[in-house]
Amino acid sequence: MSDISIIGAGSWGTALSVVLHKNGHKITIWSALAPEIEMLKEKHEQAEKLPGVILPDDIMFTTDLKEAIEGKDMLVLAVPSPFTRSTAKAMSPFVAEGQLIVSVAKGIEENTLMTLSEIIMEEIPQCEVAVLCGPSHAEEVGKEIPTSLVAGAKKRATAELVQNTFMSEVLRVYTSPDVLGMEIGASLKNVIALAAGMADGLGYGDNTKAALITRGISEMGRLALAMGAKYETLSGLTGMGDLIVTCASKHSRNRRAGYLMGQGYTMQQAMDEVKMVVEGVYSAKAAIALAKKYHVDMPIIEQVNEVLFENKPAKDAVKELMLRDKKVEHDDLEWQ
Amino acid sequence: MSDISIIGAGSWGTALSVVLHKNGHKITIWSALAPEIEMLKEKHEQAEKLPGVILPDDIMFTTDLKEAIEGKDMLVLAVPSPFTRSTAKAMSPFVAEGQLIVSVAKGIEENTLMTLSEIIMEEIPQCEVAVLCGPSHAEEVGKEIPTSLVAGAKKRATAELVQNTFMSEVLRVYTSPDVLGMEIGASLKNVIALAAGMADGLGYGDNTKAALITRGISEMGRLALAMGAKYETLSGLTGMGDLIVTCASKHSRNRRAGYLMGQGYTMQQAMDEVKMVVEGVYSAKAAIALAKKYHVDMPIIEQVNEVLFENKPAKDAVKELMLRDKKVEHDDLEWQ
Repeated sequence: MSDISIIGAGSWGTALSVVLHKNGHKITIWSALAPEIEMLKEKHEQAEKLPGVILPDDIMFTTDLKEAIEGKDMLVLAVPSPFTRSTAKAMSPFVAEGQLIVSVAKGIEENTLMTLSEIIMEEIPQCEVAVLCGPSHAEEVGKEIPTSLVAGAKKRATAELVQNTFMSEVLRVYTSPDVLGMEIGASLKNVIALAAGMADGLGYGDNTKAALITRGISEMGRLALAMGAKYETLSGLTGMGDLIVTCASKHSRNRRAGYLMGQGYTMQQAMDEVKMVVEGVYSAKAAIALAKKYHVDMPIIEQVNEVLFENKPAKDAVKELMLRDKKVEHDDLEWQ
Repeated sequence: MSDISIIGAGSWGTALSVVLHKNGHKITIWSALAPEIEMLKEKHEQAEKLPGVILPDDIMFTTDLKEAIEGKDMLVLAVPSPFTRSTAKAMSPFVAEGQLIVSVAKGIEENTLMTLSEIIMEEIPQCEVAVLCGPSHAEEVGKEIPTSLVAGAKKRATAELVQNTFMSEVLRVYTSPDVLGMEIGASLKNVIALAAGMADGLGYGDNTKAALITRGISEMGRLALAMGAKYETLSGLTGMGDLIVTCASKHSRNRRAGYLMGQGYTMQQAMDEVKMVVEGVYSAKAAIALAKKYHVDMPIIEQVNEVLFENKPAKDAVKELMLRDKKVEHDDLEWQ
């Protein structure tokens, strides 16, 4: 049994707390927001973000970061990506040498192009960092629907510790050393989800969507390779798997915003209609910046950026993708 | 402009004839069934298998195999896979040295474990063979919905000839030398579609389905590697892409049969209910035979076979998949 704190009381942190508690661990949930902690203490339910999932009585709640960190065997960092740097900075004074932080959020910092684990290592250089992600709606994990994730860390022992801590009858955890590949896939897949949504909005069928998803992963794989990560990771659970879940979901804001743009809305009109942050719009900027920095050809990412920021009609973007230069499917295979 | 015959007048052959005609080629469609040819001549529509798609007036129809083959620039072999060997045998006397046959069906011969292109080369050793497949419902191609395919051939010039012949505003064609990888993916994906259907039938969500799809492709990739094909091909359009289309489709017989088994039907009950050939049931046998022959660990394929042929409840199969040995996601990546 381990003593674990979840830093961040959103839907994902809350869902993971239930899994970890069931695995026999002692759980504390921290939030910066006093009203959120009050609600959790009172209702034992994250009524706003994960309704219907009742938390066990002996999970503890706190707004005191020092209390949440000191002496814990593992810290699960589950705040939304825009708050990762500020939260990590606030955590740092309390984090012991070698204390393990598992990053479970997704994103790339727009101005630095850093991944979340890189930000954590910069702000808390004394910690040990791991990542955990994969195809997983929080609602389904909260309901104990069979789900798979990948625990990533540079050191095998660290990844296996995370695997052993989280794995259960309903949560299968694989390990991987390719932390960078995992984070690229998890962050950029929302851009492809926007493109898939656009195809749906244009009234295209399964053929077009499958093509965009598959070729989207292919270009993300090329970027990953150029950045020093592995192609396989992008075609695995944290890349392709996660993208499939996003594109299948009727609730995905990225798919929905893309759908509206496929129907002729501008980016701003679509954002106004969806009324929440559409992560893919920010990731699209990061993706195109990475493509330029690493000199990688990313045609789908480019077209999505033109639709988003240059008011290009989605129909023209799809047409351009269909008609560009004739290509081989995979660059490096040998012909007879 | 090329002079092309489509051998087989099912939904896929008919849909491709429309694409090729629009690209300016002269088209003849052959079928062994006189009533089918009569219907096509009369209605200019494959009313049974591709209703709503009207064929241009100047497409020719014949039951004469010699007429359909001699002097043609390209033969598109589109009969269902169980008829590939017999049709190829009948074609052989009329096929000229180096005449190009493009195989567009999918399947592996149960007793020989040969792919369709291998069967064609065995029966018609004087021909040049290529394959063409990818994520493509025939109905959508018939309606000119943007679709992507891969033209595979050992020689680059052959693959590029197929690419140039089929590519259009709505059909984007890539090339690949990995014919074997393409055929493995196209044939075996239906087994994973059965598994995905079972997960749906059990009431599981997107997380479970995405995990089965992604890990399914991973084990097909391992098999492909062991057989001398490329892992990338399985994560490309003809493997992952095609599987996504199948799993998304409400009309897929494989997904539907899997769904029923997830709900507790036996294989035979599910087959009776679906009332048509469920390709994945036969592919499951071929897949497990290949796994054994090439000593590849294929846990999803194994569990599907146990559900199909040993009446194992689908729920137990999923549970076993979740709880088997802890694994790394990709075997060959290096740890620090």
